[in-house]
Amino acid sequence: MIDLYTAATPNGWKASVTLEEMGLPYNVIALDLMKGEQKKPGFLKINPNGRIPAIVDHDNGDFPVFESGAIMIYLAEKTGMLMPADAKGRSQVIQWLMFQMGGLGPMMGQANVFFRYMPEKIEVAIDRYQNESRRLLTVLDTRLADNEFLAGDYSIADIANWCWARTHAWSGVDITGLDHLKRWLDQIRARAAVDRGVKVPGEPEPAKVLEAAKTIVQR
Amino acid sequence: MIDLYTAATPNGWKASVTLEEMGLPYNVIALDLMKGEQKKPGFLKINPNGRIPAIVDHDNGDFPVFESGAIMIYLAEKTGMLMPADAKGRSQVIQWLMFQMGGLGPMMGQANVFFRYMPEKIEVAIDRYQNESRRLLTVLDTRLADNEFLAGDYSIADIANWCWARTHAWSGVDITGLDHLKRWLDQIRARAAVDRGVKVPGEPEPAKVLEAAKTIVQR
Repeated sequence: MIDLYTAATPNGWKASVTLEEMGLPYNVIALDLMKGEQKKPGFLKINPNGRIPAIVDHDNGDFPVFESGAIMIYLAEKTGMLMPADAKGRSQVIQWLMFQMGGLGPMMGQANVFFRYMPEKIEVAIDRYQNESRRLLTVLDTRLADNEFLAGDYSIADIANWCWARTHAWSGVDITGLDHLKRWLDQIRARAAVDRGVKVPGEPEPAKVLEAAKTIVQR
Repeated sequence: MIDLYTAATPNGWKASVTLEEMGLPYNVIALDLMKGEQKKPGFLKINPNGRIPAIVDHDNGDFPVFESGAIMIYLAEKTGMLMPADAKGRSQVIQWLMFQMGGLGPMMGQANVFFRYMPEKIEVAIDRYQNESRRLLTVLDTRLADNEFLAGDYSIADIANWCWARTHAWSGVDITGLDHLKRWLDQIRARAAVDRGVKVPGEPEPAKVLEAAKTIVQR
């Protein structure tokens, strides 16, 4: 069995959607970010960075894995699913996964901080991160114009980018005109495993998310 | 032969140091970021995100790889170097690589934007990113207290984090008290391949970096 430490955020969904798509049994441990449960010593032994998600694979010597992108690659290699085995196919999936890890995720995350969570409204910072997020979503849209999915068949690269892209409205980023992105957003949302995954550890409650995030930003 | 499209930045060094450590022959194509060479149609065919570094492996059917983290994994798998072959060892390297891709790199990058490049000095944003960068460097320091390297033997995870951590002064982040981090910074800096790698495509010129970055930030 796999233990999943998570919360209702895009990075948390990346892990739960992946586990659902693979049909792996897992045990959900919801961490209350507002109470700082992700910074407690017991959890820091699993993820020294004090962030969700993290997993512990009890079927592999209680092996801990932190960082959502690393969890996805670990699970793909464990099951042989959602990532091709050949070198080129694998690399293309990892390239688009890294695009999310180093680009889309951090930039939409910063848009959320300045647009939603900070008490001061700093226009230059809000504009910076919303414009960069829109630019990155446009890179995805262009890719999806000629490709059903980001890197060959449906893969962990789609799940990773989808979990962030779907929250564009929360970041205040308009996707008008990005029709290929919209098609792909809807297509993935319609998958039963995805529907189950985004409900882990529970439906997000915007008011609670806002309160928790404000507490964290102001810390 | 491998073509490396790069510039004198932490992400660029991640690729050139990795190539040097592996002893792979490569051809350097320096892109002038100030002139926007990374946004030209020819380069967008290699990296649709218009960023350096990117490689094209002419010994593997002219295969293009973008995103510095994906380049490092691709080269490690191609050569069997700087990343273990067993599942747990591999995953530990990928976890600390993802820590840099999703955490240290983006946060130090944003510290640079607000501390160095923006004409306005927005204290709340400067503090946010410098504090978060210091926190992430402290996570590395704690890890390095009991480990010579981040994930077993010297690996692409060390190179990735090192290329960013070494630029802490440029981000205005003090590392006083992080003695294990300092030991590791010096130890890696002393490697001959690293010394060659950080001089690709040429020694960085702070005045030029500042001018280029200001142009890009204000675009």
